[in-house]
Order: sequence, then C-alpha cells, then structure tokens
Amino acid sequence: MTEFRLDHDRATRTGIPEAVFCEHKSAAQIAAIGAAMMKAGQRMLFTRLRSEMFAALPAGLRGGLDYDPDSGTAFLGAASPEQEMIEGIGIVAAGTSDLPVAREAARTLAFHGYAGPVCADVGVTGLWRLTEQLETLRRHRIIIAVAGMEGALFTVLAGLIEAPVIAVASSVGYGVAADGRVALNVALASCAPGVVAVNIDNGFGAATAAIKILRSVGR
Amino acid sequence: MTEFRLDHDRATRTGIPEAVFCEHKSAAQIAAIGAAMMKAGQRMLFTRLRSEMFAALPAGLRGGLDYDPDSGTAFLGAASPEQEMIEGIGIVAAGTSDLPVAREAARTLAFHGYAGPVCADVGVTGLWRLTEQLETLRRHRIIIAVAGMEGALFTVLAGLIEAPVIAVASSVGYGVAADGRVALNVALASCAPGVVAVNIDNGFGAATAAIKILRSVGR
Amino acid sequence: MTEFRLDHDRATRTGIPEAVFCEHKSAAQIAAIGAAMMKAGQRMLFTRLRSEMFAALPAGLRGGLDYDPDSGTAFLGAASPEQEMIEGIGIVAAGTSDLPVAREAARTLAFHGYAGPVCADVGVTGLWRLTEQLETLRRHRIIIAVAGMEGALFTVLAGLIEAPVIAVASSVGYGVAADGRVALNVALASCAPGVVAVNIDNGFGAATAAIKILRSVGR
Amino acid sequence: MTEFRLDHDRATRTGIPEAVFCEHKSAAQIAAIGAAMMKAGQRMLFTRLRSEMFAALPAGLRGGLDYDPDSGTAFLGAASPEQEMIEGIGIVAAGTSDLPVAREAARTLAFHGYAGPVCADVGVTGLWRLTEQLETLRRHRIIIAVAGMEGALFTVLAGLIEAPVIAVASSVGYGVAADGRVALNVALASCAPGVVAVNIDNGFGAATAAIKILRSVGR
Amino acid sequence: MTEFRLDHDRATRTGIPEAVFCEHKSAAQIAAIGAAMMKAGQRMLFTRLRSEMFAALPAGLRGGLDYDPDSGTAFLGAASPEQEMIEGIGIVAAGTSDLPVAREAARTLAFHGYAGPVCADVGVTGLWRLTEQLETLRRHRIIIAVAGMEGALFTVLAGLIEAPVIAVASSVGYGVAADGRVALNVALASCAPGVVAVNIDNGFGAATAAIKILRSVGR
Amino acid sequence: MTEFRLDHDRATRTGIPEAVFCEHKSAAQIAAIGAAMMKAGQRMLFTRLRSEMFAALPAGLRGGLDYDPDSGTAFLGAASPEQEMIEGIGIVAAGTSDLPVAREAARTLAFHGYAGPVCADVGVTGLWRLTEQLETLRRHRIIIAVAGMEGALFTVLAGLIEAPVIAVASSVGYGVAADGRVALNVALASCAPGVVAVNIDNGFGAATAAIKILRSVGR
Amino acid sequence: MTEFRLDHDRATRTGIPEAVFCEHKSAAQIAAIGAAMMKAGQRMLFTRLRSEMFAALPAGLRGGLDYDPDSGTAFLGAASPEQEMIEGIGIVAAGTSDLPVAREAARTLAFHGYAGPVCADVGVTGLWRLTEQLETLRRHRIIIAVAGMEGALFTVLAGLIEAPVIAVASSVGYGVAADGRVALNVALASCAPGVVAVNIDNGFGAATAAIKILRSVGR
Amino acid sequence: MTEFRLDHDRATRTGIPEAVFCEHKSAAQIAAIGAAMMKAGQRMLFTRLRSEMFAALPAGLRGGLDYDPDSGTAFLGAASPEQEMIEGIGIVAAGTSDLPVAREAARTLAFHGYAGPVCADVGVTGLWRLTEQLETLRRHRIIIAVAGMEGALFTVLAGLIEAPVIAVASSVGYGVAADGRVALNVALASCAPGVVAVNIDNGFGAATAAIKILRSVGR
Repeated sequence: MTEFRLDHDRATRTGIPEAVFCEHKSAAQIAAIGAAMMKAGQRMLFTRLRSEMFAALPAGLRGGLDYDPDSGTAFLGAASPEQEMIEGIGIVAAGTSDLPVAREAARTLAFHGYAGPVCADVGVTGLWRLTEQLETLRRHRIIIAVAGMEGALFTVLAGLIEAPVIAVASSVGYGVAADGRVALNVALASCAPGVVAVNIDNGFGAATAAIKILRSVGR
Repeated sequence: MTEFRLDHDRATRTGIPEAVFCEHKSAAQIAAIGAAMMKAGQRMLFTRLRSEMFAALPAGLRGGLDYDPDSGTAFLGAASPEQEMIEGIGIVAAGTSDLPVAREAARTLAFHGYAGPVCADVGVTGLWRLTEQLETLRRHRIIIAVAGMEGALFTVLAGLIEAPVIAVASSVGYGVAADGRVALNVALASCAPGVVAVNIDNGFGAATAAIKILRSVGR
Repeated sequence: MTEFRLDHDRATRTGIPEAVFCEHKSAAQIAAIGAAMMKAGQRMLFTRLRSEMFAALPAGLRGGLDYDPDSGTAFLGAASPEQEMIEGIGIVAAGTSDLPVAREAARTLAFHGYAGPVCADVGVTGLWRLTEQLETLRRHRIIIAVAGMEGALFTVLAGLIEAPVIAVASSVGYGVAADGRVALNVALASCAPGVVAVNIDNGFGAATAAIKILRSVGR
Repeated sequence: MTEFRLDHDRATRTGIPEAVFCEHKSAAQIAAIGAAMMKAGQRMLFTRLRSEMFAALPAGLRGGLDYDPDSGTAFLGAASPEQEMIEGIGIVAAGTSDLPVAREAARTLAFHGYAGPVCADVGVTGLWRLTEQLETLRRHRIIIAVAGMEGALFTVLAGLIEAPVIAVASSVGYGVAADGRVALNVALASCAPGVVAVNIDNGFGAATAAIKILRSVGR
Repeated sequence: MTEFRLDHDRATRTGIPEAVFCEHKSAAQIAAIGAAMMKAGQRMLFTRLRSEMFAALPAGLRGGLDYDPDSGTAFLGAASPEQEMIEGIGIVAAGTSDLPVAREAARTLAFHGYAGPVCADVGVTGLWRLTEQLETLRRHRIIIAVAGMEGALFTVLAGLIEAPVIAVASSVGYGVAADGRVALNVALASCAPGVVAVNIDNGFGAATAAIKILRSVGR
Repeated sequence: MTEFRLDHDRATRTGIPEAVFCEHKSAAQIAAIGAAMMKAGQRMLFTRLRSEMFAALPAGLRGGLDYDPDSGTAFLGAASPEQEMIEGIGIVAAGTSDLPVAREAARTLAFHGYAGPVCADVGVTGLWRLTEQLETLRRHRIIIAVAGMEGALFTVLAGLIEAPVIAVASSVGYGVAADGRVALNVALASCAPGVVAVNIDNGFGAATAAIKILRSVGR
Repeated sequence: MTEFRLDHDRATRTGIPEAVFCEHKSAAQIAAIGAAMMKAGQRMLFTRLRSEMFAALPAGLRGGLDYDPDSGTAFLGAASPEQEMIEGIGIVAAGTSDLPVAREAARTLAFHGYAGPVCADVGVTGLWRLTEQLETLRRHRIIIAVAGMEGALFTVLAGLIEAPVIAVASSVGYGVAADGRVALNVALASCAPGVVAVNIDNGFGAATAAIKILRSVGR
Repeated sequence: MTEFRLDHDRATRTGIPEAVFCEHKSAAQIAAIGAAMMKAGQRMLFTRLRSEMFAALPAGLRGGLDYDPDSGTAFLGAASPEQEMIEGIGIVAAGTSDLPVAREAARTLAFHGYAGPVCADVGVTGLWRLTEQLETLRRHRIIIAVAGMEGALFTVLAGLIEAPVIAVASSVGYGVAADGRVALNVALASCAPGVVAVNIDNGFGAATAAIKILRSVGR
C-alpha cells in the first residue's frame, strides 16, 4: 500500500509544490515517499507528522529531515537561507495554545522562502495587547490570524487594519468550542470586511494561500 | 383548548410574575388568558405577540393592551410610572438589526419597573463606537448585550468593563450564522470572565435574569 | 427603533467603507439610514435588499438608488465611472443558479471602482467548460468562485491556476446540500492550496476581501 | 513556543485577574508562565491542569503550587485566608459525578476570597433531596448549579428560589447526552426566569461571573 | 398518483388498525383513500390533516368526517360511544401551547375506544401545579406527558409517580429549542426510570403505544 | 469528593430503587457508596462499571459484588433467586455486537426479580431469522429490542407482534451510524405503532421501563 | 443573468445528456434555456419545475413542454415512444407520500427511453405488502426504492432480492425525520449488501444512475 | 455472549454470502464464529479486524485465516484462484491515505472471485493524474472511487466516464472534514449523474454492491 503519484508539475501550475500530509498515512507510506524524493534530490515539506510517527521513520530519512515537533512539520532538503526571506506576511496568535498552528504556518512560509514573524498572545479580552502591536501589524501586507475558543480576534483585528486577514480557527477549546467550529464560524460570519477562512488548524493552508496571494497579486 | 393554570404565586416565590409567551398559542388561548387577567384586575406581560396575532385578538382585550409591535410585547394593566424606574441595568445592541431583541429586554424591564436605556450600533468592527460609550456603560451595574452574526461584542465588552454581561444572541445573520447559534456559542466560549448567556432572541429572559440579580444581590 | 451610528471612518481605517446589510432591518430603519446619507451627500452600498423591501422604501430614497433586483444591491450616489474600473479580479459561477451571488460580488466591486467580469456556467461535470475559459481566467490576479451543490469547482479551479481563489458557497441545492454547507465545507477541506472561504452566499464579503487584497498586496 | 503576554491589568479593568487555562498548553509553556509569576511574586490560578500534566511540571513549580487533582486547579501563591471568605454564593451539584466541575467553581471562588459551599446530589428524580435543602439554598444570593444528563435541576431550582441561577452543564452522560449539550440547552431553553448559562464544564466561568455580579451589583 | 394498498389486517396482527398520515399527501390522495374506506364501510383515523387540506377535500368526504381542527385529526365512521371508554391512560400537557399534541393523543385514544383525560398547564416552573394534580395522576396506569421548551416535566413527573411515562416532546420553543429536539433529548437522557419517548409532536404514536401496552400487558 | 445522598425512598415512590451509574464516578466515589450500602445491608445495582474500574475497587467491595464484565453490571447483595423470576419481558438483539446492551437489560431485570430471556442475532437482512422466532416472541407481553447500525429491526418487529416494543439503539456502527443516533432516530421515526425509545445503549432504562409497565399496567 | 453554457457533449461522454434543474433558477433563466433548445431542435428534461414556475414561463415554451405537475418534470421535444421502452428497472415506493419522488424517477427513465413501473405502498410495517410483490420485483435487474420516515424498506428489500437497490430517501416525515436524513442514513448504514444511495428526493439521480448501470454493465 | 445465527442461505437469496463485521465484537465472539465455520468447512470473510484483535484470536483460527492488516480483512478458507477472477470492476483511490479503504474493497472483491485493480493517487488537484488514467478507467464497467477530504474526485470522475461510480467517502481529513461526512455529502450532492454512495469507509459495501450489479445487470 505504498503507491503514490507525486504531482511534480504542481509548482509550475499553481505556484506551490505538493506537500505530504502525514496524519492518515502509515510510516511505510511516508518512508517510501521520502526515499523517492531523496533519490530524486527534491525538496519536500511534510505536515502533521507527529513525534511518534517521526520516531517510526527509518533513521536514514530521519537524518535528512529538519523536523520541528511543535508544529509537526519536517523539511526534506535545504530550506531557503534565512537572509533571503521574502517579507510581507505576519502571523498573529490569540493565545499560547494557538502557537502550534501558528508555527505550522510559519514553517510552511519558511520552507517556501517567506518570513513569517509570529506575534503571540494578543487575545481581545485585553485589547491593549492587540493595540500595542498595531504599529507592527500594520507593516504586513497580509495577516494570518490564529485563534480558538470564540475567535473574536478575527473581527477586531480586521476592523483595525487595512491588510486582509486569513483566519485559521484552532481546535483549542472545550464544551461548545471543543473542535474549533465556533472560531471558524466566527471568521465566516464576521461583520468585518477582509476576513477569509481556511480549515480548522490549517496553518499550512493559510500560509500557502498567503504565498499565492503575494505571488499573484504582488507581482 | 384554552385550559390554563396561572402561577399567581410565582412573583412571591421567584421574584418575577409569570408572563405569557404567545408564539405557539392560538388567538383564542391568548384571549382567554387576557380576559381572565382583566377580570382579576391583574397586570400581565405578553411576549412574542406578532402584529397579525395582536390584530386577531378581541377588540376589548386589544384596547386594554399597551402593545409595542417592534418588540412584540404588550402590557395589560398600568405600567410602572416612568419616574420611579429603578436604575442599574444597561442594554447594548451591536447593530440596528438587533434592536427588536434589545427592545424586548427594555420593555420587560419597564413592565417590572426598571429603567433599561439602550445603547445601539456599537459593533466591534468599529471599536471607537464602543469605546466612546464606555464611560456611560461603566455606570451600569449589569449590562445586557445583544448581538447577532459573530457576536464578538460579548467578549470585547466583557474585557473592558467590570459589570457582568448577560449575552443575548440574536438570530440576525445568514449562512453559518443563520439562526443565532454562532453568536450564542461565542458568548458561551468567550475567554472573558463575567459573560453569561440566555437563549437566542431571549430579551425577556435577559431582563428577568437582570432583575433577579439586582433583587437578590443588590438588596 | 431607528438609532444607528455609522462608522464614517472605516474606509480610512480598513480600506472599505461601511455598507448597509438590509436583510434584518425594517423599511423604516433602512429609510432613516438612507435619508441621513443623502443629507450628508455620502455614497452608500446597500446589500440583501429584496424587491419587496425596496418597494416599501420612500419614493424619494428609491429615486436616488441604483437598484439591481437580481443581486439585491443598491447604490446611493454616483457609482465610479465604468472607464476607470480597476482590473485584476475575475468572478466564476458554477451554474446559472449561482448568478445572484456572483452578481452581488460584481456589484460590490463596481461600487468600489473595480471591474468584476463574470464567467458563468463552468461546473466541473463538463470540464471542457472550465478548461476553455482557463486562458481568460489566468489573466486575473484573484478569482472569486461561486458554487453550490457539491462545490467541486473550488478544488479543480485552484489546481489549474496560479491566482488565489476566494470561494463563495451558494445556498443552491437540496437534500444534504440544502443550505450551502456542503459547498462551504468543500472549500474549507480542499486539498488544493490557495483556496480561502467566506460565508455562504456572501458575494459582498468575497468582493471586499478581494479589494483589500488588491489594495494591501498589490500596492 | 513559550511566548506569552500576561494581562496584568485585567483585575483593575474587569475585576478578575487573568488565569491560566492549561488544557491545550504544553508543560514547557505552563512552566514558563509559572516561573515568570513566581519571579514576579504574583498569585495565579491554573485551571484544567490534569494530574499527568502537573506531574510533568518542574519540581520547583510543583512545590509552589496548591494543587487539587479532583478539580484540576492549582493556586500559585498564598490563597486568601479561609476566615475572611466573602459569603453569598452557593454551589449545587445534581449528582456525585458533577462534583469535579462544582469543585472547580469552589476552588476558583476560594482563590478570589469567596466562600463556595457545595450542596451535592440533589437531582430532581428525588425532589425531596432538593426541597430539604431549600432553606439553606435560599440563604445564598447567587446559586451556581451544576448538572449533566438532562439538567432538569436548573428549571426546578429556579422555580423555587429567588436567587439567580448560573447553570453549568457538565459533560456527564452518554448517548444523546454524551457531551453536555442537552443539559446546556435545557439551561438555555428553561421556562424559569433567572437562569443564565456558561459553557459546558466551565466551573471557572460560573465562579468568576458570580464574583463579578457580587462585586458590581452588591457593591 | 393515488395508488395505495391499505393494511386491512394490521389490527389483527399488531392490535392497532392503520391510520392515514395526511401531512405529505395531496388532497386527491386523501380523497381517494377516504372514498375507498367509505365504500368498504370501514372506520379510519386521519392525522395531521390541516384545516386548509380538510377544506380542500370533496364535500362528500368532509360530511362523513368528524374533524377536530385543534389536533388536525378526523374520524371516518362512528367513534366508539363515550360511555364505553376504557380507562387507565392519562395525558399531561406542560403548557397550553402543548395542547394540540396532547389533543392528538386524546383523539387517537378516543377513536380506539379509550378515555384520555388531559391535565394541562402543569409545567415544573411552578411545581405546585404538578403536585396538586398528583393524586389524580397516580390513578392512571400509564401517563402520556407532552412538553416543549426544556421538557423538565418528564423527569420530575417520572420521579413522583409509579406509572410509566410516555414522553412526547412538542415543537414548542425558539432558539435552541426551536424544533423540539431539546425536549426529546431530555426525555431520552432522563435520570428517572420509566420514561420512554416517541417522535416529536407524535401524539398519535404515544396513544397507540399506550393502547398496545394496555392490551398486551393489562390483558 | 465523595458526598452522596441516596434516594432510599425511591422504590416506594416510583417502583424502582436507585441504581449507581458508574461511568463518570471515581473509584473512591463508587467505593464510598458501596461501603455505605454494605453497612446498611441494602442491595444495590451498579451499571456501566468497566473492568478496569471494577479492578480498582477495594477488595472488600469487589468480594461482595456479583460482577458481570460483559454488561458492566454488578449486584451488591443477593440477587432474587432464579426460580421466582417474573415472566413477561423478552429481549431481542439484532446482532452479536448488540449483546452487551441486551445483557445490561437482562441483568437489570434479574436484579429486580424478572426473567429476561435474550433472543440474539435476528437482524432483518435475513428475515427468516426473525420470523422463525415469532412464535416465541409473541409469548412475551413486552419486548425490549436492541439494534445498532440502521435499526430496521424495530419497525419490522413492531409490525409483526402485538406486544409493545421498547427500542434501545446501540452504539454499534461506523460512518454515519457511528454513535447510535441513526438507530435511535429510526426507532423514533418508525411508522409502526407501539415502538417507544430510550437512550442509546440504555439497557438499564429499557429494563426499568419494562418493569414499571408490568407493575403499573399488569397489576 | 441568463448566461448559460450547455454541455451538449455530455451524452457522448457520460451516457446521459444534461438536464435543467429549475429549483433555484428564475423564470427568465429557464425561459432562455428553453428557447435556445427549441431553436436548436434539441430535446431537454426539466426537473423540480414547480407549478407556479411553470405557469410563469412564456406560453410558447409552455406549449412545447410535456409537463407533469406531480413530479415537477417537463419534457421538451418528443419523448421516446412508449412501445420501445427498455426494461430492467423497477421502482418501489414505501408510501403514497413517496410517489412524487418515485414519479420523478419514472419520468426521467421515460425521457431517456426506459420503462419504470412503480410499485407503491409497500412499507414494511405490513410485510405482506412487500412479500406479495416479490415475484414481480425479482424480475427487475435494478430496483429504485423510495422511502421517507425511517426507511426500513431499504434493508428489508435488499435482504430479499438479488437486484441492487438504489435507495432514494424522501423528505417525508416530521420531528427527527423532518428532512429525510434519517431515511438517507438508514440506506447508508444498512446491513444488507447491495444498497447504494443518492441524495434525498433525488429521483432524477436514481434514474440516471440506473440507466448508466444498465448501459455500462448490461451492454 | 457468543450466540449467533448465521444466515447460510443469504448467498442464494441475495447473491452475497454473509460476512463477519468484527469491529464491535469481542475476540471470544469472533473465535466462536470462526470455529463454527471451520467445523462446517465454510468459507467466510471477516472485515474490520484490527491487528490487535487478530492477535487475540486463538492460534488455530489465526492459522486458518488469510489476514491482510492494511485492510483489516481476513479470509477463512481458500480464496478463489487468481486466474479465474471476473473482470469489470475498477477501484480508484484519491490519495495514498485512502488505500486501506480501497484495499478493503479489493479484498472483498477477491474473496468473491472478482478482480479489483486499484488505481491510486489520482486526486483532482492535479487533474493530469486522473486524465492520464482515463483510458484504463474507461475499460471498467463499474468504478469504485475512494476519496476523503473534500471528495471532488467523485464529480470530476463521473463527468469523464460512462461507467457508474460507487463513491466511498473515507474518514481521511481533519477540521470540517474530520469524519468523512464532507466527502460523503459531496458524493450525494454531486451534479454528475451516475454517482451513488455507500457509507463512509465502507469498502466492503461498495464491493458487494458492485458484485450485485454485475451479477444482476450483467447476466
């Protein structure tokens, strides 16, 4: 069960190369894909690679991976050198619990050569935490915002800045907010113009959308 | 089908007399209750009485009712004179679409002898609309806040004031926010302490809870 | 119940002036807002203004409105002249049933001075309808895609073009697809990078997000 | 991933200092926050800190914490001395299974200097268990009620006492009642005036709301 | 589209003859069934027959029907004479809004020759309304209880009497309780033994279940 | 956290003594209740007592319990001697996977002195399995039917026998049927008269309802 | 808003020509499509064309349509002559309320030249109604089964015949079964092999699937 | 708890012999069934037999089983020899994560003597992966398609080929797509004719439906 057919041409067609979503794959499947890429000398981004799964990969592959357990991402092949990072995208996380998702976005940006500075713990219960960062946030051309629980950050933020906001609901919460749907719905129902949403916990998707926007619109 | 058994003693027991929820009752049922109350010389609050239903009531009863079509409320019997209104409760509505629910709360307060000034159109997309009202809002001991769509107002408000916030989600919205559940969930999932919720569109419930709080705690 | 507090400063702060969402407002509320804007000589966009509601507005206001019944939008004040329209945003509608939402997006763009050519009936059941438009679609820097039913268009489109796709699920469908949630979830769960979503039927939101992106990123 | 930005000023602004919700945080994140607070000599309440997570914290921090495994709460710094506890808030738990949530409320009250006597096992299947406690319950100015399963307690209780009821649904149940939503909806749909709700299992939220009410209204 | 195939033998097999559920049938379909039954000289119960649909039936059929608009039920053929009514089943309705459903149960019982006295307006917000009826209610061998909103009646009632309770949630409510699911779930999640449930608004089903129980168990 | 208040009088009032639902209780809580009952010399039924929890109880209590791991039930005190078992209730299980729930019903019946013969594996895909048991099933006065997946058994069975059917949906299934709701809804929506439902997996509730019916109606 | 792009080639590619789903289209849109087809001399099937919408079409188009109000279908152009109808597909409807959906399937078959005899009112509450039709049903190579409420028909039928069953849930029901989802889930969760499902009320989809099966497999 | 009643006659009646669904069965139950079948010399297919459960079976049974851990299927008794495999059914899997479900289908086909070649990793984000397989896919008379996430494959595939598509949503995804419902709904709501659906992850059901179709229609 290790058949796969990589979409090598995707970067040309859509601007973003294919990545490997590891959550529902077996160690054998991930190892086979990794081996093929190593052999072909291609770079590859792995997402949602939990520590236990990483530990179950062959040592050879593990050695070739730049693995970050906090975000569950791994880079195969050399990342773009930090000094050349393209700027324009900022990441905001409502609370410290939202950092793994924010970091998945930051790492995805880094893999593709984009800077993704994270501004953490700016939940709207204490508005000053947000407003004292406004100056910095307003420098970005696109903001990726990550929030769980009730996600009020998305609306407040979009009402304060000119940049579009890519909202990523995180599955941080309990009771009615247990799976991130409340925060997602808040992003979708937001009265503030300029908020668009990606799937819950999808830091990768927010980052690739931001890159596509920068490439297509900022060209 | 006009049997009913009013809970005359409820005011003594719980502090709030029974009211008549008209939405699922027939005109005949409402008329029968009204006639009995008129005969007994008792005051009564009717809620969710739509204009068409009001028009279908007997002229005699209609004449005895102080009816407000915007909120769908009617008072049978003299309301408490305005000059004696007890203060302490403020009402905030996120948008003009939320005014019917806010007004149901205000009318319920008025029926019971409480002032309920409404501060409208303070949605958080333009934070200045809220912050310029803060001085006024901080004078209240309890705030009833009404908001539909994504309900971010609840969290932002509770992070700015000391008074507890009774959140009433309104069924104003469409798509994922069509029935008020998103705003309700936001109130329940709010990170800000001091937010409590009542049912969607339940201005009556928010008002009676505020009265019970004032009576029980403020005594 | 006609209190309102317009956010005159919003255009400066966020790049998009406030609009009036009419669906849950009474004719009196809409008329009052319109009168105030006419008096102030300000332009204003009204959305989700159904024909019956438009007919219920005062003749004076009606006369000042450029009303489009298909999309339920109205412009108060002169629109930007067509010849100056800013290009870069294209609109794709999966079927003819999706045209009202697509047109809400196009009208919102027009009100703000942006061109929004609509490419209709490119559902993926007949892929040729989409592929024969690819040349044209690839000229746009941002695509707004509208689709109901199962919304497969979002994924297929995003896999074929470089521009980011703002997906608007439309509430076109029945059975499991009755309210647009299936198409919305497809947009959110899409494997294709570069798809972001707004609320169901929210052509206005897609258009304002596209404008914010063009302004912030394309500057 | 240990960035955080505590809202030191929150107590002044809202009457309740910030607490640390531990459920979605890593041990490293909790330890960093704890160390900062110890260094600053500030008191802090930790909630939803499971035993395994507590055991994973550095010994130095563990030693400084007053940890209660039943409720998953920990106090950093000296609690308010018991003799000065402010009275007025009572806690009712429908069954013994609801005690962890009731205890989270009681501990939160204690941390802030409020007494929170718990009256347990008063489910309405045996009404006498509730009625024999009425005398005691009527002494409180606010009641926090915790119930899972079908939550009928909320309505019955609110029909018997004058104090407002803050309803906390607990996630105790199975089948249709598996996640506490039935009890929550019962609280929201209750016919009895004076019932307000917080999120499922949110003993902390009920306690802080009760405190805000006592402070704001009882002042 | 008037084909039908009545299950004439059902009474023998299951104890209950077939009835005609009218809600999704056309007037032509109902008329055809009625004509066939009149011709065959058979009695028949029609349920969920709204007034407008009744008015659309042929005059000949209308004349042969004992129609009750409150419950939407009609009897074709002579009902069992009142004096022979079999006793043992009591009906309880929480509020006056629940009477149409209670009456559907009572009429179904009557059609089959069973008495079904209705005890109305015994909601648990005022427990005395229920307790003062206990003596009467305890005389029945089976209780059909109808309640909407939060349905706390089911649990309280079952905790007070020995008879089994057949709970019928009614679709009386709004917000979270809009469609009767909260009351249904309360019946299903009830801690009190002896509560069984039928579908929302299904007075017919409760009545036929009660009859089957009396016939099968009370024989 | 071991406070409890047993409802010793419940058997007199409702016909069924209180039982201990163990799922959300700690070992300490269960042990305390058990110790109190042993001391008082009272019999007690424990339900949803998983093997791991049973193993965690004090040896003294374990020794006094008649524990059945398949159903998760335990009897404290002597069960009613088998020879005196009251007849009239039959149990039907659609598949072997439904046996734990069926057995919870059978054990609950046994604890109270009722026979509960189980007829297993009569799913309706092979109707002969059901029809060849009809003779036996028709001897019972009440049938408890347990089924997961799509629960078609409830309707087919109720169409074939005169006895009322207490339907217990089991949480056996996957995909759309993962939590037993489909089978529960089938029971509630069944066209066949005489089907009543209890909560998913609630063999205990079905058994106590059957006992209440036999006692109240069969007296 | 009348742009459309018909997929003339679809019949060649997939075996089924495109049809016009009218529910979300305006009269103007339908008229434009109809006019284009008439001009081109092409046959066309219209589905979900309600009587009011049909009445709103231009007389010229109406005259050219073979319209069936029961199923909401219309044929433009000559239907295949009855005598050449291809056999092999049978349609079963559980109740008379399910006939509109069954008839949509039959009309779709007829438009494409296939016979679709309907066998109505074979619900499983009276199994004899189904079993007495078994001989006839077993002659078909594919069965389209339509059922609402609890949909037990799907499982029972599939357990009795060799032909595959295409299950169409109908939105006939109320309470938990109000929108056809229960019947749909029953089809999906059925234990009986050979049951496949299409969308709720989708008689058209069942018919086209049956045709594709006959063409592709029976060739 | 090992009672079972196998439906030996099912193959004759429906064309497919009974299989053993292991997920909710205990090792003892599975072992008892296996022993009975071995004794009777009958072949048997076991599905959803996880590795841990397989390991818990008696060695004697394990030795007689052809077990495939990837799909969780086991054959008892000799499989049909490969050379006689009946052709006509093709399997398509959108991604490598969908292979376990695709393989359950392939193994079910193999057990019954049908070939089931799997074509993997043809997700529609890279359409070329699908179109380059079209030639091969068009040779099959029925296609089983497996896809998770947003399931756009179902619609695109059905728009390109003549064969009917049996869609199996897989529970591969996260956030809004966490349980496979989005992909299932896409299959049901698909605009493309000829798509029918089975339950989520139900490779077995797709395979048996395909076999029934081939046997009944292709005869």
